[in-house]
Amino acid sequence: MNTIELIKGISRTSPEKIVLLVIDGLGGLPDPQTGKSELETARIPHLDELASRGICGLADIIAPGITPGSGPGHLALFGYDPVDCNIGRGVLEAIGIDIELKPGDVAARGNFCTIDKNGIIADRRAGRISTEKCAELCKLLDGLSINGVDIKIYPLKEHRFVAVFRGGNLAAELTESDPSQTGIAPLEIKAVHAIAWGTANIVNQFIAKAREILKDQQPANMILLRGFSKKPQLPTIPEIYKLNPLAIAVYPMYRGLARLVGMGIASAGMTPESEFQSLKDNYKEHDFFFVHLKWADTAGEDKDFARKVKVLEQIDAALLGITALKPDVLVITGDHSTPAILGGHSWHPVPVLISSRYCRPDNVKEFSEKAFLNGGLGRIKATQIMPLAMANALKLTKFGA
Amino acid sequence: MNTIELIKGISRTSPEKIVLLVIDGLGGLPDPQTGKSELETARIPHLDELASRGICGLADIIAPGITPGSGPGHLALFGYDPVDCNIGRGVLEAIGIDIELKPGDVAARGNFCTIDKNGIIADRRAGRISTEKCAELCKLLDGLSINGVDIKIYPLKEHRFVAVFRGGNLAAELTESDPSQTGIAPLEIKAVHAIAWGTANIVNQFIAKAREILKDQQPANMILLRGFSKKPQLPTIPEIYKLNPLAIAVYPMYRGLARLVGMGIASAGMTPESEFQSLKDNYKEHDFFFVHLKWADTAGEDKDFARKVKVLEQIDAALLGITALKPDVLVITGDHSTPAILGGHSWHPVPVLISSRYCRPDNVKEFSEKAFLNGGLGRIKATQIMPLAMANALKLTKFGA
Repeated sequence: MNTIELIKGISRTSPEKIVLLVIDGLGGLPDPQTGKSELETARIPHLDELASRGICGLADIIAPGITPGSGPGHLALFGYDPVDCNIGRGVLEAIGIDIELKPGDVAARGNFCTIDKNGIIADRRAGRISTEKCAELCKLLDGLSINGVDIKIYPLKEHRFVAVFRGGNLAAELTESDPSQTGIAPLEIKAVHAIAWGTANIVNQFIAKAREILKDQQPANMILLRGFSKKPQLPTIPEIYKLNPLAIAVYPMYRGLARLVGMGIASAGMTPESEFQSLKDNYKEHDFFFVHLKWADTAGEDKDFARKVKVLEQIDAALLGITALKPDVLVITGDHSTPAILGGHSWHPVPVLISSRYCRPDNVKEFSEKAFLNGGLGRIKATQIMPLAMANALKLTKFGA
Repeated sequence: MNTIELIKGISRTSPEKIVLLVIDGLGGLPDPQTGKSELETARIPHLDELASRGICGLADIIAPGITPGSGPGHLALFGYDPVDCNIGRGVLEAIGIDIELKPGDVAARGNFCTIDKNGIIADRRAGRISTEKCAELCKLLDGLSINGVDIKIYPLKEHRFVAVFRGGNLAAELTESDPSQTGIAPLEIKAVHAIAWGTANIVNQFIAKAREILKDQQPANMILLRGFSKKPQLPTIPEIYKLNPLAIAVYPMYRGLARLVGMGIASAGMTPESEFQSLKDNYKEHDFFFVHLKWADTAGEDKDFARKVKVLEQIDAALLGITALKPDVLVITGDHSTPAILGGHSWHPVPVLISSRYCRPDNVKEFSEKAFLNGGLGRIKATQIMPLAMANALKLTKFGA
């Protein structure tokens, strides 16, 4: 029996409320100059105070050494096995802009790019064209039909878009056309499995047509496609946990992930304060809240140690917006580490804090990677966070007589 | 290969003796007034002394967040996967009152209940009738035979009883008749799997007969059945570990669990001193002793923090009854935590102490949840306790050449 089946059998509704605060890219690494991580550098008195009263630890999102993408990162936090339930990039992007995918649809993430006269990729992002330009170009490609397959193109930010292939007997077992480097030509799409031969052919035809349509555009004269995928069939959060969940997330992908697992979606502005205000506004109507804060990750991705420190301090300063609500269970963690000195997601376990009346506090006094090494949670798997949150909210009955 | 198969392949007999002392409901939570748990409040110098000389840690019985029942709790301590080897409620209740179940028997837990003239459940416990009344009513239902299946009814406390179906080709894949709520009629028993169609029919006939027999009784004019189950076929402790085990447990369910895994059963009085005396009396004849002390759990279940503290102090004071025997390996742990402030089993990991010549002592000086966080065992699974006990008793040969 897997954990989700087990939890499904013992979960129950209760009046208690759970807030899962995900600080994207939370964990970091020491600045070689100071020997202190972003969390150790930041002045974060409210987080330290919560650490003193709560139970702390470190969580592996997938497994030691494995760096998670945002999809697996969040699925693991929601209790799903992040390897079994992996979601393709195309689907992730599609659901992030509210595209209603049907079961047979294949979605792909696209980039407009620049190729030179020999067809060699000069810029994988076409100089990061404006979002408006992107929308304009998407209209040129939208609505094509090839062998009975309809192709819809939806603009994202800057050079990014989503392609959705619908109709016929499509399969997503395809290689990518984006070589992830410049100086070579876009790759031909190939079927990884025989069932996808037909789909590969259609996608390659589409790419050829797109090249033809875009040939006089500059700098966006070509497209790259990757992350071909179909929508997975996951049991939802209400089904597994008997929760009435709400997501407060301002970036599309996270809203899409939340929708995929059956959460309601709230609106909010682009600051921690605004997201916490949305939490307050919606607090009565739900018993589980996934609150996603993006900006620590963005600073880490930009290799901006100081800005990541500042973001953490801003979040800390706004935290009263959550604690004033006195949630029965407050979980603070990340979907992965994003150390500024690495400039990207990393494999390092993420700090986890659980604060509740029944959490069995430990001796940790400070919210940091190093302090959490001695936390009472020890080193756990991210998929164990939801069962712990549920237990602390008295939402799980005992297993066995 | 699962752990049990691995252990089976490398276990051997040795003169060394292992005592597994299970303090039921051992772990707790801090009293909000003092910030100290039951163990931290109690004066337990002998346990502290053992902690100083032994190796300590915390064990998850099932998994983080999952609260174990007594059945899974003990099976995990004996080394069995507590989810795979889950024992149904009917069987657990039956073995708890010394009913000798045969392999094909199906056991169910029953309640006498009250239905109104329309057949709607008014009270699921028939006003908690007396144990004497229950015994009287059980006699009315006992000994029926339907299509060659003999049905025995055994009274438990108050409104509770056990029903055992024997004969023919019975299966336990059945739904329950107890809807776990009042205001609706008892549910029809249904087969979850085709092999149980015949059994469902017999059980429904039995329930109809019982209703007829009880129709003039008040308030116990109907029955509810749940937890249909067969005795699981587990490899026994002698088979896995090549041990000659003895259980010293005074409450029926724990004796039943011990018998199920092939232990001999000793008799003892209802105090730690008497159970430890029984250990001494039987010490020569066995090489493994499961000693079960119930009362810390009972105090926790009663939300009586002070009494749980007192029970822990009483156990500590009596502990010389074990240590004077100088067991080669002494393990002290619990089958689950029962924090007094929760008044029930909980998901919190249980303290584990292993004391032996070869245990590699750590820096822990105190027997408590918090002190054990820094113990040398770290955070383990309860199923890992038996292999560790066996190793410390030099009863496992090396794996592989």
